[in-house]
Amino acid sequence: MEKKLSILVSNDDGIFSDGLGMLVKELQSIAAVTIVAPENQQSAVGHAITMHRPLRVREVSKDEKFFGYAVDGTPADCVKLAIRHLMKNKPDLVISGINHGSNTAVSVIYSGTVSAATEGTILGIPSFAISLTTFEPNADFSYAAKFARQLALKVVEKGLPFGTLLNVNVPPVPENEIRGVVITRQGKSIWNDEFEARRDPGNKQYFWLKGELVELDEEEDIDQRAILNNKISVTPIQFDLTNYSLLEVLRTWNIML
Amino acid sequence: MEKKLSILVSNDDGIFSDGLGMLVKELQSIAAVTIVAPENQQSAVGHAITMHRPLRVREVSKDEKFFGYAVDGTPADCVKLAIRHLMKNKPDLVISGINHGSNTAVSVIYSGTVSAATEGTILGIPSFAISLTTFEPNADFSYAAKFARQLALKVVEKGLPFGTLLNVNVPPVPENEIRGVVITRQGKSIWNDEFEARRDPGNKQYFWLKGELVELDEEEDIDQRAILNNKISVTPIQFDLTNYSLLEVLRTWNIML
Repeated sequence: MEKKLSILVSNDDGIFSDGLGMLVKELQSIAAVTIVAPENQQSAVGHAITMHRPLRVREVSKDEKFFGYAVDGTPADCVKLAIRHLMKNKPDLVISGINHGSNTAVSVIYSGTVSAATEGTILGIPSFAISLTTFEPNADFSYAAKFARQLALKVVEKGLPFGTLLNVNVPPVPENEIRGVVITRQGKSIWNDEFEARRDPGNKQYFWLKGELVELDEEEDIDQRAILNNKISVTPIQFDLTNYSLLEVLRTWNIML
Repeated sequence: MEKKLSILVSNDDGIFSDGLGMLVKELQSIAAVTIVAPENQQSAVGHAITMHRPLRVREVSKDEKFFGYAVDGTPADCVKLAIRHLMKNKPDLVISGINHGSNTAVSVIYSGTVSAATEGTILGIPSFAISLTTFEPNADFSYAAKFARQLALKVVEKGLPFGTLLNVNVPPVPENEIRGVVITRQGKSIWNDEFEARRDPGNKQYFWLKGELVELDEEEDIDQRAILNNKISVTPIQFDLTNYSLLEVLRTWNIML
């Protein structure tokens, strides 16, 4: 008998989010799915891990059946705790998502969704993050979930080199308007952010971060451009941050006291 | 008259840490220094930013003089708030540190120290992170601070390409034992972490993360190897996470539903 695939699912929107629910439902047709996800929403936590306090784990039910483990920590905590402690055996794959909102361009480094998949990669397991690029409250995750199932099978078949994961963004359009899949690079767009200063009832000042993503890069092969063209964007990313092309330049600097 | 350099200093150990204090003291001989740093210690926060609550800023004095701004947020928040709101003009340089403990290998992606410098880079300012590779409580930051001052002048003179920052680690040995500076790449070492399960007084379970960094990579040009050889490690890192070498491979996968 063929061994059933084992897939770990996490996210940053929290264990009760619709995107995770729809993803799990699709994956259950091809794999045994283990869910370990944050108790609460954890957006923009970056690759945070919890070291200064301990973590709590709660078993969560749905429709009166065991559903998964809720952790009072970050997405990276969830994946670490799942693989190092909660799961008997390492999964074949880690999938993080489906995130409600895009993770493209520089947002990738702020993303809790991506960090859960990065942690899977660090622990030696093929991993991908998947996001639906809309903040619309009643977003439909069904096509993104179907795509995740197909991609899961492809990644298990082909494998990924150590240190590399996939960052997937799906445009929020009906299946018949999807114009294909493109392999992209991370766009160079940045956040044009600002702080809005306000006064609390005691007249003390506080600051809200607000801003919008500005495209600096208009080439066809970037993640955001794919989305604008109603294409699914798949970007291979890595946690080795070295800028190899600068190593030789810096060696000519003769830095020394 | 020559315009005085303007340097923004932040960190993740908090505004009152010794490493930041020593760094500022050295930099004041070459620049006007603005300090915007977390109120409290923020290690392992990754590149988190605060979006779901507002930020508070407190003016902090030292020796009865204004010292800097303490923010109840992450290192990335501090740099964003400094450049977008608190400083009249953009600084010439952002320096994050001096961190108490190393930021090498995969730790780079968990590092709050590195994230402050990354945020400077995202905002278009040459930036570096600097760490002293020891957890010894009475660590001496004076040589690392002197090195930071020299490197600051060098970076201002040479510039850095958009999107690239420097991650500097200084070994914790007396100046006369430092054996030079090497330009390194990020080591492939990983955390061999585990969770220790305990019971609270109410008999409920909780988990402490613990672990150690394991070297997978023994080549001479990596960050950790430099430190072991009593050399200062300078690694150029970037926030474009794309694995360019994998783009063509993925294009042969023919991913589609």
